[in-house]
Amino acid sequence: MGGETGSKRVPRAVREQQMLDAGVRAFARSGYQNASMDDIAELAGVSKPLVYLYLNSKEELFTACIRREAAALVTAVRAAVERDAPADRQLWSGLSGFFAHAAEHPEGWTLLHVQARTHGQPYAREVAAMRAEIVEFVTQLIGAAAREHALGTARARTLAGTEVSGLAHALVGAAESLADWAGDGRAGGHSAKEAAATLMNFAWAGLGNLLQGTGWSPDRVG
Amino acid sequence: MGGETGSKRVPRAVREQQMLDAGVRAFARSGYQNASMDDIAELAGVSKPLVYLYLNSKEELFTACIRREAAALVTAVRAAVERDAPADRQLWSGLSGFFAHAAEHPEGWTLLHVQARTHGQPYAREVAAMRAEIVEFVTQLIGAAAREHALGTARARTLAGTEVSGLAHALVGAAESLADWAGDGRAGGHSAKEAAATLMNFAWAGLGNLLQGTGWSPDRVG
Repeated sequence: MGGETGSKRVPRAVREQQMLDAGVRAFARSGYQNASMDDIAELAGVSKPLVYLYLNSKEELFTACIRREAAALVTAVRAAVERDAPADRQLWSGLSGFFAHAAEHPEGWTLLHVQARTHGQPYAREVAAMRAEIVEFVTQLIGAAAREHALGTARARTLAGTEVSGLAHALVGAAESLADWAGDGRAGGHSAKEAAATLMNFAWAGLGNLLQGTGWSPDRVG
Repeated sequence: MGGETGSKRVPRAVREQQMLDAGVRAFARSGYQNASMDDIAELAGVSKPLVYLYLNSKEELFTACIRREAAALVTAVRAAVERDAPADRQLWSGLSGFFAHAAEHPEGWTLLHVQARTHGQPYAREVAAMRAEIVEFVTQLIGAAAREHALGTARARTLAGTEVSGLAHALVGAAESLADWAGDGRAGGHSAKEAAATLMNFAWAGLGNLLQGTGWSPDRVG
Protein backbone atom coordinates (compact mmCIF):
# COMPACT_ATOMS: atom_id res chain seq x y z
CA MET A 1 0.00 0.00 0.00
CA GLY A 2 1.19 3.51 -0.78
CA GLY A 3 4.61 4.78 -1.88
CA GLU A 4 8.05 3.79 -0.69
CA THR A 5 9.27 7.21 0.34
CA GLY A 6 8.95 7.12 4.14
CA SER A 7 11.37 4.82 5.95
CA LYS A 8 8.39 3.01 7.50
CA ARG A 9 7.12 2.02 4.07
CA VAL A 10 10.20 -0.02 3.18
CA PRO A 11 9.19 -3.71 3.07
CA ARG A 12 10.55 -5.89 5.84
CA ALA A 13 12.50 -8.11 3.43
CA VAL A 14 14.33 -5.09 2.02
CA ARG A 15 15.02 -3.69 5.50
CA GLU A 16 16.43 -7.02 6.60
CA GLN A 17 18.84 -7.10 3.68
CA GLN A 18 19.98 -3.58 4.55
CA MET A 19 20.59 -4.72 8.14
CA LEU A 20 22.54 -7.74 6.89
CA ASP A 21 24.58 -5.47 4.57
CA ALA A 22 25.42 -3.31 7.58
CA GLY A 23 26.18 -6.36 9.73
CA VAL A 24 28.56 -7.89 7.18
CA ARG A 25 30.40 -4.58 6.89
CA ALA A 26 30.63 -3.97 10.63
CA PHE A 27 31.61 -7.54 11.56
CA ALA A 28 34.21 -7.76 8.79
CA ARG A 29 35.77 -4.42 9.75
CA SER A 30 35.61 -4.48 13.53
CA GLY A 31 35.23 -8.14 14.41
CA TYR A 32 32.31 -9.70 16.20
CA GLN A 33 33.12 -8.41 19.68
CA ASN A 34 33.80 -4.82 18.70
CA ALA A 35 30.96 -4.31 16.23
CA SER A 36 28.06 -2.77 18.14
CA MET A 37 24.37 -2.97 17.38
CA ASP A 38 24.36 0.84 17.53
CA ASP A 39 26.89 0.99 14.68
CA ILE A 40 24.97 -1.57 12.68
CA ALA A 41 21.65 0.25 13.10
CA GLU A 42 23.31 3.51 12.05
CA LEU A 43 24.97 1.91 9.01
CA ALA A 44 21.61 0.43 8.00
CA GLY A 45 19.87 3.75 8.58
CA VAL A 46 17.33 2.33 11.02
CA SER A 47 16.71 2.40 14.76
CA LYS A 48 18.36 -0.14 17.02
CA PRO A 49 14.98 -1.48 18.29
CA LEU A 50 14.04 -2.27 14.69
CA VAL A 51 17.23 -4.33 14.28
CA TYR A 52 16.34 -6.28 17.42
CA LEU A 53 12.73 -6.64 16.27
CA TYR A 54 13.79 -8.14 12.94
CA LEU A 55 16.94 -10.07 13.87
CA ASN A 56 16.46 -10.73 17.62
CA SER A 57 20.05 -10.54 18.83
CA LYS A 58 23.62 -9.83 17.78
CA GLU A 59 24.24 -13.60 17.71
CA GLU A 60 21.34 -14.17 15.32
CA LEU A 61 22.34 -11.24 13.15
CA PHE A 62 25.87 -12.65 12.92
CA THR A 63 24.52 -16.09 12.01
CA ALA A 64 22.19 -14.59 9.39
CA CYS A 65 25.11 -12.64 7.87
CA ILE A 66 27.26 -15.79 7.68
CA ARG A 67 24.46 -17.81 6.10
CA ARG A 68 23.71 -15.19 3.49
CA GLU A 69 27.36 -14.72 2.50
CA ALA A 70 28.01 -18.48 2.44
CA ALA A 71 24.98 -19.07 0.22
CA ALA A 72 26.02 -16.22 -2.09
CA LEU A 73 29.53 -17.64 -2.46
CA VAL A 74 28.37 -21.17 -3.20
CA THR A 75 25.76 -19.86 -5.66
CA ALA A 76 28.35 -17.70 -7.44
CA VAL A 77 30.76 -20.62 -7.87
CA ARG A 78 28.05 -23.00 -9.10
CA ALA A 79 26.68 -20.42 -11.51
CA ALA A 80 30.14 -19.68 -12.91
CA VAL A 81 30.95 -23.27 -13.84
CA GLU A 82 30.53 -23.97 -17.54
CA ARG A 83 28.68 -27.29 -17.41
CA ASP A 84 29.31 -29.75 -20.22
CA ALA A 85 32.63 -28.03 -21.00
CA PRO A 86 35.88 -30.04 -20.77
CA ALA A 87 36.99 -30.58 -17.19
CA ASP A 88 39.74 -27.96 -17.28
CA ARG A 89 37.29 -25.33 -18.55
CA GLN A 90 34.88 -26.27 -15.80
CA LEU A 91 37.57 -25.86 -13.18
CA TRP A 92 38.81 -22.62 -14.72
CA SER A 93 35.32 -21.14 -14.86
CA GLY A 94 34.57 -22.21 -11.28
CA LEU A 95 37.83 -20.78 -9.95
CA SER A 96 37.32 -17.56 -11.91
CA GLY A 97 33.85 -17.28 -10.37
CA PHE A 98 35.21 -17.90 -6.89
CA PHE A 99 38.00 -15.33 -7.06
CA ALA A 100 35.76 -12.76 -8.75
CA HIS A 101 33.13 -13.17 -6.04
CA ALA A 102 35.71 -12.89 -3.25
CA ALA A 103 37.17 -9.76 -4.90
CA GLU A 104 33.75 -8.16 -5.37
CA HIS A 105 32.64 -9.01 -1.83
CA PRO A 106 35.79 -8.57 0.25
CA GLU A 107 33.79 -8.00 3.42
CA GLY A 108 31.73 -11.13 2.84
CA TRP A 109 34.92 -13.11 2.26
CA THR A 110 36.53 -11.73 5.42
CA LEU A 111 33.36 -12.56 7.35
CA LEU A 112 33.45 -16.17 6.17
CA HIS A 113 37.16 -16.85 6.14
CA VAL A 114 38.26 -14.93 9.22
CA GLN A 115 35.47 -13.66 11.45
CA ALA A 116 33.16 -16.67 11.32
CA ARG A 117 36.04 -18.95 12.26
CA THR A 118 37.43 -16.71 14.98
CA HIS A 119 34.42 -16.79 17.29
CA GLY A 120 33.98 -20.47 17.96
CA GLN A 121 30.78 -22.43 17.62
CA PRO A 122 28.14 -22.35 16.23
CA TYR A 123 29.57 -19.94 13.64
CA ALA A 124 32.54 -22.09 12.68
CA ARG A 125 30.11 -24.93 11.98
CA GLU A 126 28.17 -22.83 9.45
CA VAL A 127 31.34 -22.11 7.51
CA ALA A 128 32.54 -25.72 7.78
CA ALA A 129 29.27 -26.87 6.18
CA MET A 130 29.71 -24.44 3.28
CA ARG A 131 33.32 -25.52 2.84
CA ALA A 132 32.31 -29.19 2.83
CA GLU A 133 29.80 -28.42 0.08
CA ILE A 134 32.48 -26.80 -2.06
CA VAL A 135 34.96 -29.62 -1.42
CA GLU A 136 32.28 -32.13 -2.48
CA PHE A 137 31.60 -30.11 -5.62
CA VAL A 138 35.31 -30.06 -6.53
CA THR A 139 35.63 -33.78 -5.69
CA GLN A 140 32.88 -34.58 -8.19
CA LEU A 141 34.47 -32.36 -10.80
CA ILE A 142 37.86 -34.06 -10.45
CA GLY A 143 36.22 -37.49 -10.31
CA ALA A 144 34.32 -36.81 -13.53
CA ALA A 145 37.48 -35.55 -15.20
CA ALA A 146 39.33 -38.69 -14.12
CA ARG A 147 36.64 -40.94 -15.60
CA GLU A 148 36.61 -38.90 -18.79
CA HIS A 149 40.37 -39.23 -19.16
CA ALA A 150 40.28 -42.93 -18.34
CA LEU A 151 37.84 -43.49 -21.21
CA GLY A 152 39.82 -41.35 -23.62
CA THR A 153 43.29 -42.75 -23.27
CA ALA A 154 44.78 -46.14 -22.62
CA ARG A 155 47.64 -44.71 -20.56
CA ALA A 156 45.37 -43.08 -18.01
CA ARG A 157 44.56 -44.73 -14.74
CA THR A 158 41.48 -43.96 -12.70
CA LEU A 159 42.39 -42.00 -9.61
CA ALA A 160 41.37 -43.72 -6.38
CA GLY A 161 38.56 -42.07 -4.45
CA THR A 162 40.85 -41.17 -1.59
CA GLU A 163 43.27 -39.48 -3.99
CA VAL A 164 40.44 -37.47 -5.53
CA SER A 165 39.28 -36.40 -2.08
CA GLY A 166 42.81 -35.37 -1.12
CA LEU A 167 43.26 -33.40 -4.34
CA ALA A 168 39.96 -31.61 -3.78
CA HIS A 169 41.03 -30.62 -0.26
CA ALA A 170 44.38 -29.40 -1.60
CA LEU A 171 42.69 -27.33 -4.30
CA VAL A 172 40.18 -25.72 -1.93
CA GLY A 173 42.91 -24.90 0.61
CA ALA A 174 45.04 -23.38 -2.13
CA ALA A 175 42.08 -21.30 -3.35
CA GLU A 176 41.36 -19.97 0.14
CA SER A 177 44.98 -19.03 0.62
CA LEU A 178 45.16 -17.28 -2.76
CA ALA A 179 41.94 -15.35 -2.13
CA ASP A 180 43.62 -13.88 0.95
CA TRP A 181 46.79 -13.24 -1.05
CA ALA A 182 44.83 -11.46 -3.79
CA GLY A 183 42.88 -9.40 -1.28
CA ASP A 184 45.91 -8.44 0.81
CA GLY A 185 46.57 -4.78 0.13
CA ARG A 186 50.01 -4.98 1.79
CA ALA A 187 51.07 -7.48 -0.87
CA GLY A 188 50.15 -4.91 -3.50
CA GLY A 189 46.91 -6.67 -4.36
CA HIS A 190 46.41 -9.09 -7.20
CA SER A 191 43.45 -9.33 -9.52
CA ALA A 192 40.92 -12.14 -9.33
CA LYS A 193 42.03 -13.18 -12.80
CA GLU A 194 45.66 -13.35 -11.71
CA ALA A 195 44.75 -15.49 -8.71
CA ALA A 196 42.63 -17.81 -10.85
CA ALA A 197 45.36 -18.13 -13.50
CA THR A 198 48.01 -18.84 -10.85
CA LEU A 199 45.95 -21.58 -9.25
CA MET A 200 44.83 -23.02 -12.56
CA ASN A 201 48.42 -23.28 -13.75
CA PHE A 202 49.49 -24.77 -10.45
CA ALA A 203 46.58 -27.17 -10.19
CA TRP A 204 45.73 -28.16 -13.70
CA ALA A 205 49.15 -28.82 -15.08
CA GLY A 206 49.57 -31.03 -12.00
CA LEU A 207 46.14 -32.65 -12.21
CA GLY A 208 46.51 -32.99 -15.95
CA ASN A 209 49.64 -35.08 -15.48
CA LEU A 210 48.05 -37.11 -12.72
CA LEU A 211 45.05 -37.89 -14.88
CA GLN A 212 47.40 -39.16 -17.57
CA GLY A 213 49.09 -41.40 -15.05
CA THR A 214 52.31 -39.43 -14.82
CA GLY A 215 52.55 -38.43 -11.18
CA TRP A 216 55.63 -37.41 -9.28
CA SER A 217 57.49 -40.05 -7.34
CA PRO A 218 60.20 -39.59 -4.70
CA ASP A 219 62.27 -42.22 -6.48
CA ARG A 220 62.41 -40.26 -9.70
CA VAL A 221 65.44 -38.08 -10.12
CA GLY A 222 64.39 -34.43 -9.87
CA MET B 1 70.43 -28.91 44.81
CA GLY B 2 69.61 -32.49 45.80
CA GLY B 3 67.64 -35.20 44.01
CA GLU B 4 64.71 -34.88 41.65
CA THR B 5 62.25 -37.06 43.55
CA GLY B 6 60.02 -34.52 45.28
CA SER B 7 57.81 -32.40 43.07
CA LYS B 8 59.47 -29.30 44.53
CA ARG B 9 62.86 -30.38 43.21
CA VAL B 10 61.82 -30.35 39.53
CA PRO B 11 63.66 -27.49 37.82
CA ARG B 12 61.55 -24.56 36.76
CA ALA B 13 62.32 -25.02 33.06
CA VAL B 14 61.06 -28.60 33.21
CA ARG B 15 57.95 -27.61 35.17
CA GLU B 16 57.17 -24.90 32.64
CA GLN B 17 57.35 -27.36 29.78
CA GLN B 18 54.96 -29.65 31.66
CA MET B 19 52.56 -26.74 32.09
CA LEU B 20 52.81 -25.90 28.40
CA ASP B 21 52.20 -29.57 27.52
CA ALA B 22 49.06 -29.46 29.67
CA GLY B 23 48.01 -26.13 28.21
CA VAL B 24 48.38 -27.29 24.59
CA ARG B 25 46.31 -30.38 25.38
CA ALA B 26 43.58 -28.52 27.26
CA PHE B 27 43.29 -25.63 24.77
CA ALA B 28 43.26 -27.95 21.76
CA ARG B 29 40.59 -30.19 23.29
CA SER B 30 38.30 -27.71 25.01
CA GLY B 31 39.04 -24.41 23.32
CA TYR B 32 40.44 -21.33 24.97
CA GLN B 33 37.27 -20.27 26.79
CA ASN B 34 36.40 -23.68 28.20
CA ALA B 35 39.85 -24.83 29.26
CA SER B 36 40.28 -23.91 32.93
CA MET B 37 43.48 -23.22 34.82
CA ASP B 38 42.29 -25.88 37.30
CA ASP B 39 42.26 -28.49 34.52
CA ILE B 40 45.65 -27.37 33.27
CA ALA B 41 47.22 -27.49 36.73
CA GLU B 42 45.80 -30.96 37.28
CA LEU B 43 46.99 -32.19 33.87
CA ALA B 44 50.46 -30.83 34.65
CA GLY B 45 50.41 -32.37 38.13
CA VAL B 46 51.06 -29.08 39.89
CA SER B 47 49.09 -26.60 41.97
CA LYS B 48 47.19 -23.80 40.31
CA PRO B 49 49.16 -21.07 42.16
CA LEU B 50 52.36 -22.52 40.71
CA VAL B 51 50.94 -22.21 37.17
CA TYR B 52 50.12 -18.55 37.87
CA LEU B 53 53.53 -18.01 39.48
CA TYR B 54 55.33 -19.33 36.38
CA LEU B 55 53.03 -18.22 33.55
CA ASN B 56 51.16 -15.24 35.08
CA SER B 57 47.77 -15.63 33.43
CA LYS B 58 45.69 -17.81 31.13
CA GLU B 59 46.36 -15.30 28.31
CA GLU B 60 50.13 -15.57 28.76
CA LEU B 61 49.97 -19.34 29.04
CA PHE B 62 47.97 -19.48 25.78
CA THR B 63 50.50 -17.20 24.07
CA ALA B 64 53.42 -19.28 25.36
CA CYS B 65 51.74 -22.47 24.07
CA ILE B 66 51.21 -20.93 20.62
CA ARG B 67 54.80 -19.69 20.44
CA ARG B 68 56.26 -23.02 21.46
CA GLU B 69 54.15 -24.99 18.97
CA ALA B 70 54.78 -22.52 16.16
CA ALA B 71 58.54 -22.64 16.74
CA ALA B 72 58.46 -26.46 16.89
CA LEU B 73 56.58 -26.65 13.59
CA VAL B 74 58.89 -24.25 11.76
CA THR B 75 61.96 -26.02 13.18
CA ALA B 76 60.61 -29.43 12.12
CA VAL B 77 60.01 -28.27 8.55
CA ARG B 78 63.40 -26.58 8.24
CA ALA B 79 65.20 -29.60 9.70
CA ALA B 80 63.40 -31.98 7.34
CA VAL B 81 64.43 -30.20 4.15
CA GLU B 82 67.31 -31.93 2.36
CA ARG B 83 69.47 -28.94 1.49
CA ASP B 84 71.53 -29.16 -1.68
CA ALA B 85 69.15 -31.80 -3.07
CA PRO B 86 67.26 -31.11 -6.32
CA ALA B 87 64.32 -28.75 -5.80
CA ASP B 88 61.66 -31.48 -5.96
CA ARG B 89 63.48 -33.50 -3.28
CA GLN B 90 63.74 -30.39 -1.12
CA LEU B 91 60.02 -29.78 -1.44
CA TRP B 92 59.19 -33.43 -0.86
CA SER B 93 61.36 -33.62 2.26
CA GLY B 94 59.91 -30.39 3.62
CA LEU B 95 56.31 -31.48 3.02
CA SER B 96 57.03 -34.89 4.53
CA GLY B 97 58.45 -33.16 7.60
CA PHE B 98 55.44 -30.87 7.86
CA PHE B 99 52.82 -33.61 7.62
CA ALA B 100 54.78 -35.91 9.95
CA HIS B 101 55.04 -33.16 12.55
CA ALA B 102 51.33 -32.32 12.30
CA ALA B 103 50.44 -36.02 12.61
CA GLU B 104 52.75 -36.53 15.61
CA HIS B 105 51.51 -33.36 17.33
CA PRO B 106 47.80 -33.24 16.50
CA GLU B 107 47.04 -31.07 19.53
CA GLY B 108 49.79 -28.63 18.61
CA TRP B 109 48.44 -28.45 15.06
CA THR B 110 44.89 -27.89 16.29
CA LEU B 111 46.15 -25.18 18.62
CA LEU B 112 47.86 -23.34 15.76
CA HIS B 113 45.41 -23.91 12.96
CA VAL B 114 42.11 -23.65 14.81
CA GLN B 115 42.34 -22.38 18.38
CA ALA B 116 44.92 -19.65 17.89
CA ARG B 117 42.87 -18.23 15.02
CA THR B 118 39.51 -18.48 16.75
CA HIS B 119 40.23 -16.12 19.61
CA GLY B 120 41.16 -12.93 17.82
CA GLN B 121 44.22 -10.83 18.51
CA PRO B 122 46.99 -11.03 19.62
CA TYR B 123 46.93 -14.81 19.10
CA ALA B 124 46.01 -14.72 15.43
CA ARG B 125 49.01 -12.44 14.86
CA GLU B 126 51.41 -15.00 16.34
CA VAL B 127 50.17 -17.64 13.93
CA ALA B 128 50.17 -15.21 10.99
CA ALA B 129 53.84 -14.48 11.66
CA MET B 130 54.70 -18.17 11.66
CA ARG B 131 52.72 -18.69 8.47
CA ALA B 132 54.48 -15.78 6.78
CA GLU B 133 57.83 -17.36 7.68
CA ILE B 134 56.80 -20.66 6.05
CA VAL B 135 55.43 -18.90 2.95
CA GLU B 136 58.72 -17.03 2.62
CA PHE B 137 60.65 -20.28 2.97
CA VAL B 138 58.55 -21.92 0.23
CA THR B 139 58.85 -18.81 -1.95
CA GLN B 140 62.63 -19.04 -1.79
CA LEU B 141 62.55 -22.74 -2.54
CA ILE B 142 60.37 -22.24 -5.63
CA GLY B 143 62.42 -19.23 -6.70
CA ALA B 144 65.65 -21.22 -6.44
CA ALA B 145 64.10 -24.07 -8.41
CA ALA B 146 62.99 -21.63 -11.10
CA ARG B 147 66.48 -20.19 -11.44
CA GLU B 148 67.98 -23.69 -11.52
CA HIS B 149 65.62 -24.74 -14.32
CA ALA B 150 66.22 -21.54 -16.23
CA LEU B 151 69.95 -22.28 -16.25
CA GLY B 152 69.45 -25.91 -17.22
CA THR B 153 67.18 -25.63 -20.21
CA ALA B 154 66.69 -23.19 -23.01
CA ARG B 155 62.92 -23.72 -23.03
CA ALA B 156 62.44 -22.65 -19.46
CA ARG B 157 61.41 -19.16 -18.54
CA THR B 158 62.05 -17.57 -15.19
CA LEU B 159 58.85 -17.26 -13.19
CA ALA B 160 58.01 -13.72 -12.21
CA GLY B 161 58.30 -12.87 -8.53
CA THR B 162 54.58 -12.34 -8.19
CA GLU B 163 53.92 -15.77 -9.71
CA VAL B 164 56.36 -17.40 -7.31
CA SER B 165 54.68 -15.66 -4.37
CA GLY B 166 51.24 -16.79 -5.56
CA LEU B 167 52.42 -20.36 -6.01
CA ALA B 168 53.92 -20.38 -2.51
CA HIS B 169 50.62 -19.17 -1.04
CA ALA B 170 48.74 -21.84 -3.00
CA LEU B 171 51.09 -24.55 -1.77
CA VAL B 172 50.92 -23.50 1.87
CA GLY B 173 47.12 -23.27 1.75
CA ALA B 174 46.91 -26.70 0.16
CA ALA B 175 49.22 -28.14 2.84
CA GLU B 176 47.13 -26.69 5.67
CA SER B 177 43.96 -28.06 4.15
CA LEU B 178 45.51 -31.52 3.68
CA ALA B 179 46.85 -31.60 7.24
CA ASP B 180 43.27 -31.19 8.44
CA TRP B 181 42.09 -33.80 5.95
CA ALA B 182 44.74 -36.27 7.13
CA GLY B 183 43.94 -35.63 10.79
CA ASP B 184 40.17 -35.83 10.36
CA GLY B 185 39.09 -39.11 11.97
CA ARG B 186 35.64 -38.88 10.34
CA ALA B 187 37.28 -39.04 6.92
CA GLY B 188 38.90 -42.32 7.98
CA GLY B 189 42.25 -40.67 8.59
CA HIS B 190 45.12 -40.58 6.15
CA SER B 191 48.79 -41.03 6.86
CA ALA B 192 51.28 -38.19 6.80
CA LYS B 193 53.00 -39.96 3.91
CA GLU B 194 49.75 -40.17 1.96
CA ALA B 195 49.09 -36.45 2.49
CA ALA B 196 52.65 -35.55 1.44
CA ALA B 197 52.46 -37.76 -1.67
CA THR B 198 49.08 -36.32 -2.66
CA LEU B 199 50.29 -32.76 -2.40
CA MET B 200 53.63 -33.48 -4.02
CA ASN B 201 51.88 -35.07 -7.00
CA PHE B 202 49.45 -32.20 -7.20
CA ALA B 203 52.02 -29.49 -6.74
CA TRP B 204 55.18 -30.76 -8.36
CA ALA B 205 53.77 -32.14 -11.57
CA GLY B 206 52.14 -28.73 -11.90
CA LEU B 207 55.17 -26.73 -10.81
CA GLY B 208 57.41 -28.96 -12.90
CA ASN B 209 55.46 -28.03 -16.01
CA LEU B 210 55.42 -24.38 -15.07
CA LEU B 211 59.16 -24.33 -14.60
CA GLN B 212 59.56 -25.76 -18.08
CA GLY B 213 57.38 -23.04 -19.48
CA THR B 214 54.35 -25.21 -20.20
CA GLY B 215 51.59 -23.72 -18.12
CA TRP B 216 47.88 -24.11 -18.62
CA SER B 217 46.04 -21.49 -20.63
CA PRO B 218 42.30 -20.93 -20.93
CA ASP B 219 42.69 -20.76 -24.70
CA ARG B 220 44.11 -24.24 -24.97
CA VAL B 221 41.61 -26.96 -25.73
CA GLY B 222 41.14 -29.07 -22.59
